[in-house]
Amino acid sequence: MEIKIFAGSTGKEFAERMCKYLGTDLGKSKVLTFTEGNTYVKAEETVRDKDVYLVQSIGLHPNNEFTEILFWMDAFKRASAHSVTVVMPYFSYAKGDKKDEPRVSIRGRVCADCIELAGADRVVTMDLHSPQIQGFFKIPVDHLFALPILCEYVKTLNIEDLIVVSPDSGFAKEARSYARYLNAPVAIGDKERVDHSENANVIDIVGDVQGKNALIVDDFSISGGTLIDVARALKEKGAKKIYAALSHIVLNEKGVKKIEDSPIELLISTDSVNNPFVKDSDKIKIVSVAPLFAETIARIDRKESVSPLFNEVPSKVFNNI
Amino acid sequence: MEIKIFAGSTGKEFAERMCKYLGTDLGKSKVLTFTEGNTYVKAEETVRDKDVYLVQSIGLHPNNEFTEILFWMDAFKRASAHSVTVVMPYFSYAKGDKKDEPRVSIRGRVCADCIELAGADRVVTMDLHSPQIQGFFKIPVDHLFALPILCEYVKTLNIEDLIVVSPDSGFAKEARSYARYLNAPVAIGDKERVDHSENANVIDIVGDVQGKNALIVDDFSISGGTLIDVARALKEKGAKKIYAALSHIVLNEKGVKKIEDSPIELLISTDSVNNPFVKDSDKIKIVSVAPLFAETIARIDRKESVSPLFNEVPSKVFNNI
Amino acid sequence: MEIKIFAGSTGKEFAERMCKYLGTDLGKSKVLTFTEGNTYVKAEETVRDKDVYLVQSIGLHPNNEFTEILFWMDAFKRASAHSVTVVMPYFSYAKGDKKDEPRVSIRGRVCADCIELAGADRVVTMDLHSPQIQGFFKIPVDHLFALPILCEYVKTLNIEDLIVVSPDSGFAKEARSYARYLNAPVAIGDKERVDHSENANVIDIVGDVQGKNALIVDDFSISGGTLIDVARALKEKGAKKIYAALSHIVLNEKGVKKIEDSPIELLISTDSVNNPFVKDSDKIKIVSVAPLFAETIARIDRKESVSPLFNEVPSKVFNNI
Amino acid sequence: MEIKIFAGSTGKEFAERMCKYLGTDLGKSKVLTFTEGNTYVKAEETVRDKDVYLVQSIGLHPNNEFTEILFWMDAFKRASAHSVTVVMPYFSYAKGDKKDEPRVSIRGRVCADCIELAGADRVVTMDLHSPQIQGFFKIPVDHLFALPILCEYVKTLNIEDLIVVSPDSGFAKEARSYARYLNAPVAIGDKERVDHSENANVIDIVGDVQGKNALIVDDFSISGGTLIDVARALKEKGAKKIYAALSHIVLNEKGVKKIEDSPIELLISTDSVNNPFVKDSDKIKIVSVAPLFAETIARIDRKESVSPLFNEVPSKVFNNI
Amino acid sequence: MEIKIFAGSTGKEFAERMCKYLGTDLGKSKVLTFTEGNTYVKAEETVRDKDVYLVQSIGLHPNNEFTEILFWMDAFKRASAHSVTVVMPYFSYAKGDKKDEPRVSIRGRVCADCIELAGADRVVTMDLHSPQIQGFFKIPVDHLFALPILCEYVKTLNIEDLIVVSPDSGFAKEARSYARYLNAPVAIGDKERVDHSENANVIDIVGDVQGKNALIVDDFSISGGTLIDVARALKEKGAKKIYAALSHIVLNEKGVKKIEDSPIELLISTDSVNNPFVKDSDKIKIVSVAPLFAETIARIDRKESVSPLFNEVPSKVFNNI
Amino acid sequence: MEIKIFAGSTGKEFAERMCKYLGTDLGKSKVLTFTEGNTYVKAEETVRDKDVYLVQSIGLHPNNEFTEILFWMDAFKRASAHSVTVVMPYFSYAKGDKKDEPRVSIRGRVCADCIELAGADRVVTMDLHSPQIQGFFKIPVDHLFALPILCEYVKTLNIEDLIVVSPDSGFAKEARSYARYLNAPVAIGDKERVDHSENANVIDIVGDVQGKNALIVDDFSISGGTLIDVARALKEKGAKKIYAALSHIVLNEKGVKKIEDSPIELLISTDSVNNPFVKDSDKIKIVSVAPLFAETIARIDRKESVSPLFNEVPSKVFNNI
Repeated sequence: MEIKIFAGSTGKEFAERMCKYLGTDLGKSKVLTFTEGNTYVKAEETVRDKDVYLVQSIGLHPNNEFTEILFWMDAFKRASAHSVTVVMPYFSYAKGDKKDEPRVSIRGRVCADCIELAGADRVVTMDLHSPQIQGFFKIPVDHLFALPILCEYVKTLNIEDLIVVSPDSGFAKEARSYARYLNAPVAIGDKERVDHSENANVIDIVGDVQGKNALIVDDFSISGGTLIDVARALKEKGAKKIYAALSHIVLNEKGVKKIEDSPIELLISTDSVNNPFVKDSDKIKIVSVAPLFAETIARIDRKESVSPLFNEVPSKVFNNI
Repeated sequence: MEIKIFAGSTGKEFAERMCKYLGTDLGKSKVLTFTEGNTYVKAEETVRDKDVYLVQSIGLHPNNEFTEILFWMDAFKRASAHSVTVVMPYFSYAKGDKKDEPRVSIRGRVCADCIELAGADRVVTMDLHSPQIQGFFKIPVDHLFALPILCEYVKTLNIEDLIVVSPDSGFAKEARSYARYLNAPVAIGDKERVDHSENANVIDIVGDVQGKNALIVDDFSISGGTLIDVARALKEKGAKKIYAALSHIVLNEKGVKKIEDSPIELLISTDSVNNPFVKDSDKIKIVSVAPLFAETIARIDRKESVSPLFNEVPSKVFNNI
Repeated sequence: MEIKIFAGSTGKEFAERMCKYLGTDLGKSKVLTFTEGNTYVKAEETVRDKDVYLVQSIGLHPNNEFTEILFWMDAFKRASAHSVTVVMPYFSYAKGDKKDEPRVSIRGRVCADCIELAGADRVVTMDLHSPQIQGFFKIPVDHLFALPILCEYVKTLNIEDLIVVSPDSGFAKEARSYARYLNAPVAIGDKERVDHSENANVIDIVGDVQGKNALIVDDFSISGGTLIDVARALKEKGAKKIYAALSHIVLNEKGVKKIEDSPIELLISTDSVNNPFVKDSDKIKIVSVAPLFAETIARIDRKESVSPLFNEVPSKVFNNI
Repeated sequence: MEIKIFAGSTGKEFAERMCKYLGTDLGKSKVLTFTEGNTYVKAEETVRDKDVYLVQSIGLHPNNEFTEILFWMDAFKRASAHSVTVVMPYFSYAKGDKKDEPRVSIRGRVCADCIELAGADRVVTMDLHSPQIQGFFKIPVDHLFALPILCEYVKTLNIEDLIVVSPDSGFAKEARSYARYLNAPVAIGDKERVDHSENANVIDIVGDVQGKNALIVDDFSISGGTLIDVARALKEKGAKKIYAALSHIVLNEKGVKKIEDSPIELLISTDSVNNPFVKDSDKIKIVSVAPLFAETIARIDRKESVSPLFNEVPSKVFNNI
Repeated sequence: MEIKIFAGSTGKEFAERMCKYLGTDLGKSKVLTFTEGNTYVKAEETVRDKDVYLVQSIGLHPNNEFTEILFWMDAFKRASAHSVTVVMPYFSYAKGDKKDEPRVSIRGRVCADCIELAGADRVVTMDLHSPQIQGFFKIPVDHLFALPILCEYVKTLNIEDLIVVSPDSGFAKEARSYARYLNAPVAIGDKERVDHSENANVIDIVGDVQGKNALIVDDFSISGGTLIDVARALKEKGAKKIYAALSHIVLNEKGVKKIEDSPIELLISTDSVNNPFVKDSDKIKIVSVAPLFAETIARIDRKESVSPLFNEVPSKVFNNI
Repeated sequence: MEIKIFAGSTGKEFAERMCKYLGTDLGKSKVLTFTEGNTYVKAEETVRDKDVYLVQSIGLHPNNEFTEILFWMDAFKRASAHSVTVVMPYFSYAKGDKKDEPRVSIRGRVCADCIELAGADRVVTMDLHSPQIQGFFKIPVDHLFALPILCEYVKTLNIEDLIVVSPDSGFAKEARSYARYLNAPVAIGDKERVDHSENANVIDIVGDVQGKNALIVDDFSISGGTLIDVARALKEKGAKKIYAALSHIVLNEKGVKKIEDSPIELLISTDSVNNPFVKDSDKIKIVSVAPLFAETIARIDRKESVSPLFNEVPSKVFNNI
């Protein structure tokens, strides 16, 4: 089989980085939004019997990106692709993973079902909001982790007396994994999320952060609020410099501004979301996970195991972040 | 069973008109767009074992409206509704009904499949772009027609020497139906649509329009361009006043302006699309099809045949348009 | 993969023409109708892991042909074929593509669903009654056109002063495509189909046919009635010789007789339908589209794009019609 | 819910007998075969939210009857029936219940899957060729038996010294059930079916039939051959009068003639197959199972258990056979 | 509709408690294990058009209980039940909710899919291991909580100076809900689960437990190990009496013995698992959630909202625990 | 593609025999039963894009084995296997193939559906209880027969004056196949199975066994009861030595004891069931069908026809039984 990478409308830069890593050309395609609002997609080269990869997160414009992915799947399948893989570095609706109130939708499952129905044969994604979401899909999901790449970058900063901080008990397990990778101790914020207004009040920090440089870790931050509250609490507890590392960066313009005005020294994240607001911020460092996704696809194509990539970063990947 | 009508975010006014006709209250619900762009829906009263009707077109914001409909279906089904009907007066993606180029999607089928998968038991819609689209659904579709309501309204205008004009041969069959209803002759524009740039050049008018008042009929107009081109051709051929009737009005702000600057005297359409741009235009008259949809639901609920509504407008419906 | 072509009971001649073009042998198989009426099919050579093509239209015996196709699909799938493609040059039930009356079936969708369920992976067909029917299938459909082949044949007739005639406005768009290919003007019959009695009254011809040789084009003709009515109207309007070109020929014995007694000089069609009644008629010329289907399969097998065949006839194909 | 019985094209007489039993009117409907061979069905009265029963066997014209059933299912479902039940007294393709040769289809499963896909909610049938066929359906099957009705009729003949004869070991278990019901001994023919040519050679009779009146029992007979061979063997072994009882009568004209020329005194069967050839034969007695099916539907509608009907014939049913 | 409650082989006692609450009789049924190991189920009274509830956890014999549930679903559906609900107070395979290692199964999703396929229309369950598991089902899940019932029972013990303890950070959020209900502070154990050997080492207690009576809360305990480790750590930190509350009790005989030899004063749990080992233990108090499930079914049947039961215990329910 | 054979927990010996025949290594894997009863499976080497064969009967522990197979399917599919085949030499639930009583499940169909849903692409099995069960699967089933191997082994015993005996009329057809293969006459027991208590009374032997050595043949025996009853009846009728051949041996410890105390000289069966009770019995000879299954897989992999194996035993296979 021959592989062919195509990009959705907001996945172009990421896909190009992947193609550069793989030394291949991006598939020619066209996405239009018609006057009346309809999305139209077209692959402009043959995909007959090819293994197609469509690169696009469900990110800052989730409904457009989700609907577009469905149309891509259908277009590729009707064009007789051999297989179609959705490369979706971020899956925003994964946050809708439970029915925690009466009469709401489990949106992650709805999206998963529709993506499968429309023709996807496999999904490659990263740091889903909860690991159970993999079970919303019947098709295989290659679930990558940003942790090794983020940690390798943090190591290059040579921060002394580092302590890893989880903003709340819900992320404690993952924070411990960061701590292990960085050979550092861990502290935990004690926060409670109350409602859909997305506000939360940090109450306390469990663990001794006095005189330490702190790295707050989380999977994403929407408004930056929790991060900054934790950062302030750390400062009050005597922490020195405050860093943060996020798998996905969905901050809007206002959120970026808040980070810049905060005690956070540097916020490290990835390019899983096509986020225009972070590009010019001095306080935000984006490392690319496109090489990681590209390496994953290369291994899929060579029929090799992908799981070693979950724990360590091959040097070829790290040299391209 | 008890019926309960809910409105999606852009279907509220239409649903309220339906409820007024039926003498019932609109179901309480909540739709939010979170900071990061995700849509969230919640029914705020029990739907357990009820026949639920969700009112929302796929209209000017098709991706948002489509995705929201999916989430509503899932929310109602998980909340144990007895049945869920999508009342979708306009279905924009019905325009994507064929694969007229290589490697494109048949978007109407994709949407139909996903709406079914998400849990819809029935669809009530109006004037689909082509009648075959009903076959994209496996579930029952009650397919209403704007024709009798638009014609009844036209009759109230008492236009003399009326001739019905189809803008192209593709709509000729429907134009003949209008002509029969209005007891008028028919003329046909000879136009050819070329590409996706949505421009088209009217070539000629087949039929004698000299000294007649013309009513151009079509299912929808995106930019208004074709309508105005036909109107001008009719003027050149000696027509007197020019009217137009459209099932669905998807004109944007610019399109409305173009209509106002055109030889068209009055454009009659329906409220199938929630279109904010047409509200203040003197040249555009919106008649409501909400009573027609409400009457349809009343008959569904009383287990009566809906088909008589395809051909004639009950007076109770007409008195409420 | 290895390809293997099998023929259904009424597809044998067509399949043999395809095999001749491809230089391959037709797969050995058996179809029986038992005394009690049951159809029985058996592939008599192994298909394990092969790409199988089953050649049979749903034509003059649609229920038998449709049911037989279902059994073939199941037989091939249970025999572990790698993939099964239905080569169905004509799909008669495509005419049942809408619900234009209450309480009827959308028969095209029913057939499409069952063919998929029974195991088909792909369909190759030609000139579906409406392009939307492709959307009745979820599996890929390679949709070929008879137009280039019919036109190339017409060109060999060297007809002067040719005008292309659509029998009604519904076929006007396609007639224009014929006209463009043949570099000729176009005229349109103005007919209205009334009911299921399959009678229709031609009213008028739009366009100047005086002194011209006319080529009436249509996708099929059941009784020949419309064709002959249009032919007569053309004669009355001063046309010289009348030709006709149809994608599919489903005329029965009586229809063939009517054509022979009509002003039509020559009726050109294809072998998409296995029609025994046309074989001995001097007025009917059948050109074979089997080479076109064979070339399509060759390209599918070589993983090449099929779409170039939609617009032009490779010389190897034309030399074999 | 309200029930409504409709008849397919070959199920009309049976359905009318059912309606007479139930004191209800047959639903108005139309079935056409168009000139080109396509089948068209239409329900001519509303079925909205009704429990619909479609009465038609897959009998002497199995492909037409099967395809028609699919279209009926779709028509009723799209017309918003509450539920649709196929009343199929005979299911001819049940004979295709195994893959006893390489590369054949399991036709019974194909038909079952398609009937379900097209929309059937339930099947009511009688004496399937093997009981496993019920497992080819996912939907509920009410599986009736002709045995009690046939036996009750046999009792009215007051045959002395009766012995029940199974034509082969494959029907021995059922023959024993007949014998138990009739309080008679049993004998077994020893036959071996060889190939698809439907010929078989009776070798021997196991059991003492000397001086006895024999009742040969079977589920169906296609050519009558086996029945007559067994009858002759019985005569040779000293049997007196020979009777036969079949659940389904699929004999064609030639088969009926053979029965008339045979030593069989009287062949008793049911009206499960709409068989025009048996109507004028003095040697063939048809008892109607329509009252049994009607009683079944009445119980389904009253939400009562149907299973008691498997073993005994209520007098109201027997009085109407 | 009429409701009918049946019990699976290990759900009999629970179902009888439900029936007592509802004042109804348990449906007659039979479950056999044949000599060769096969499970056989039969409903011994009609379920035609009834709303059936099958009561059985997937508990201490998960493979038998799961397989039996599948057979029950099929039996009820084939017997024409109107709807079938699985009342599954405990769902053991919910623990298999993620793919945390390469090449393992997401067993919760497999079970959910099969239960749906076999015919379940709804699930009623309690305290799933993670809330995302609800999204493994497409059918509605009524997800109850043991918390209010356990807390109400704890209140009757009148424990002074109570502190709620979560054994690890993963259960911290739920522990806070307990604390809120009981108006008590909260402490968190700091544990890390290492591998599938189900051993874990408690490291520390965050929060001041000195001189307090502690209530350790968790969803279940397999070996009792974690509970006892936390209990010992609490003792070391100066806690007075130690209580524990678990939603589900899956302790085996050895685990019960360990609890009895531990510093835990009283372990409170529910009858969601049919656990024979806990019946004679003085240290284990089982409160019945059968009335809660019965009340849920009563509300489902009356078409009332179930969600109020998530937060409070109606007195009729509490009086029956 | 590369093939890879894995064994379920009770299929290990059989799989190893297959691997030995094929000269390949068994795939590394792990199956655990956790303390709380849950089954856990893991493939410990990559299966990405490989053709995987999972070897395990549904045998003496049918619920565990069935559930484990489902988890294996899911694990392999989520790990991106190219295809997954269940090699299931014995399928115990095939006995549940009909609804011979009201309100029971057709368990064979339930199992088939779930195995497909969980991800199986093909099944390889042997001597299903009835051939119709192949129709419970939609996926291809390669259905092997023990007959040639058992007969070849019988031939090595050089038994003179052999007569093949079917224990009842239900197995008569298969007994004749044995007789043909062994060039021997046939006799038939006349037994009637009454209820689920699995007892049956042999009444008579049809055929002359006086002075002959008898080989009783059947597909399986649960308690041994029927076999022994037939053996005794044969002895009474003057038979000399009694042998028996069974496709599958599901005898429990008590059954083995009964065989040993019976007039049966030697019972020949296969290793299709992993049966620990038969290993030390002198009267029971197990021939291995693992080479037959291995040869089947080799042919599947080489894309050759499998059907020749249905009738004859290649010497390489026989040399390895």
